[in-house]
Amino acid sequence: MPNSARQTLAVVAILFATLMGQLARAADDPLPSWNECPAKQSIIAFVEKVTKEGGPDFVKPELRIATFDNDGTLWCEQPMYFQELFAFDRIKETAEQHPEWKDKEPYKFVLDGDLKALAAQGEKSLLEIVSATHAGMSVEDFHKIVREWMHTARHPRFHRPYDQCIYQPMVEVLKYLRANQFKTFIVSGGGVEFMRPWVEGAYGIPPQQVVGSSGVVKYEWNDGKPMLLKEPKVEFIDDGPGKPVGINRFIGRHPIFAFGNSDGDLEMLQWTTDGPESGPRPRIGLIVHHTDAEREYAYDRHSAVGKLDKALDAAPREGWFVVNMKDDWKVIFPPEKP
Amino acid sequence: MPNSARQTLAVVAILFATLMGQLARAADDPLPSWNECPAKQSIIAFVEKVTKEGGPDFVKPELRIATFDNDGTLWCEQPMYFQELFAFDRIKETAEQHPEWKDKEPYKFVLDGDLKALAAQGEKSLLEIVSATHAGMSVEDFHKIVREWMHTARHPRFHRPYDQCIYQPMVEVLKYLRANQFKTFIVSGGGVEFMRPWVEGAYGIPPQQVVGSSGVVKYEWNDGKPMLLKEPKVEFIDDGPGKPVGINRFIGRHPIFAFGNSDGDLEMLQWTTDGPESGPRPRIGLIVHHTDAEREYAYDRHSAVGKLDKALDAAPREGWFVVNMKDDWKVIFPPEKP
Repeated sequence: MPNSARQTLAVVAILFATLMGQLARAADDPLPSWNECPAKQSIIAFVEKVTKEGGPDFVKPELRIATFDNDGTLWCEQPMYFQELFAFDRIKETAEQHPEWKDKEPYKFVLDGDLKALAAQGEKSLLEIVSATHAGMSVEDFHKIVREWMHTARHPRFHRPYDQCIYQPMVEVLKYLRANQFKTFIVSGGGVEFMRPWVEGAYGIPPQQVVGSSGVVKYEWNDGKPMLLKEPKVEFIDDGPGKPVGINRFIGRHPIFAFGNSDGDLEMLQWTTDGPESGPRPRIGLIVHHTDAEREYAYDRHSAVGKLDKALDAAPREGWFVVNMKDDWKVIFPPEKP
Repeated sequence: MPNSARQTLAVVAILFATLMGQLARAADDPLPSWNECPAKQSIIAFVEKVTKEGGPDFVKPELRIATFDNDGTLWCEQPMYFQELFAFDRIKETAEQHPEWKDKEPYKFVLDGDLKALAAQGEKSLLEIVSATHAGMSVEDFHKIVREWMHTARHPRFHRPYDQCIYQPMVEVLKYLRANQFKTFIVSGGGVEFMRPWVEGAYGIPPQQVVGSSGVVKYEWNDGKPMLLKEPKVEFIDDGPGKPVGINRFIGRHPIFAFGNSDGDLEMLQWTTDGPESGPRPRIGLIVHHTDAEREYAYDRHSAVGKLDKALDAAPREGWFVVNMKDDWKVIFPPEKP
């Protein structure tokens, strides 16, 4: 064989081997929608060390607790929290049964589409809208309404069902952790009964692993059958300092892995990485930073929704990893389902 | 061979086969501490039908939710709730730091051992004792105190640690259900933080599967570290109609299997067997009836602790199985650990 042919063959062989290596690595990649970045590397390194039996950082499977915020961390939260959009849709859909709403604040603002006027009234008005749309029915009936809305409503910009406005890279993190015997929990400021009907299908997280805000529920009899009636009273706000409280109440164990995106997750991240422990244990905190106006939204310190300010300042000090959505994620949403 | 020898051999062969059959059945018996009885048969038949793939009563593993009361169902509750005995021990142990208790009701009743006087004061006094002993410390510190008490305190009659006064036949039911992919939950009127430190060791139930009564917990900073402080305020009473509420709040799914022992479990049993459902599904309710004064205690309709009256009347009407402790259980407690 002439020398040049031999060289060509060698080059082809090297190229082939490189390509095979890349394919093999891609097949092995537990987070294929992530570009190489410190956050991705830190997640994989963390999982590898806590699952390495006999290693110094090994954590028993029952202690592998991971907590995830939902709004802005697992799914989109713009142009406003999806649960608010749901409540507004419910006001419009049930307005016929409430003719008085046409002239009554804050309902008229919703019916007139004047969300600025509604926002100007502050939290109390929003709470009234939530109470009017989330109570006075059984838990089962509320779940049915949420499921129906998920089937029919579409995101104003992405034109897809809200439960498909979830972040594909985060779904991969959830699956990767569960494949390594982590228990994955949602710890969200959103309503627990608003999440339960769809999060199992979207994220693979069962109802008993959903921690959220809740209203008072009452046991009653109706037509000779027991029922649980949703009442228009707030019971628990799972946000900010409420998150460690919710984690303790519902999980009763310290997370070793926490992922958030806003100042509402600050205390959950602190509790995870600084909280009390019976001995040294590895733990990791991560933050999604919304930097991608083109594919999703870009916002942080001055956003009305999902404000990320204190937690962003705390990140370098605390050693939390900040995900740069624009650079670190190859895709934002999963392929659309037919 | 003479005829008689042949007959003897045949008899020996039959005896041997019978013995082998019995041994094989004993080895297969998932509930070896139970005598044959309707409750045992119903549990086994229920598990077999819901796990039979393709059968008409098949239930997907994620829907196999089983809820158990604790006091009087999984462990003993006499001569009074063990958590009360714990609280009284704590009053005695910390009395030195509270010299005023010597002359102050209801503390003096506890210090004087005058439990009749304490009982005469009713629930409010008991709540004060519980508040004084269950609050003003971090959740972790409270867990340490409970663990220490479990090591040192002994049941006044059985002279063994309280976490060994658990019912061996019920431990077998829990294991049998989990081996068949049920998720087993405690749903108890007892305090959730009083149970969490020891139920995983005793029953194999992790902290996130413990539903119980709770006090308010607050997120605070102490010496530059976050902590969860137990406050002297009741947050949730997981008893009676509170049990279906607790099941909804913490599990978010309907149990198909519920086991109780008192009127405090009536609503949990109703919710399990009569509650709303999206389609027909098998479900079963069971009640431990304390009928064994010799090996444990005998009490029901007129007991101050674990009163079983309405639920006992409801059982035949509702198709709930009643376990006759004296006849149905071969043993009460597990072998004592050294």
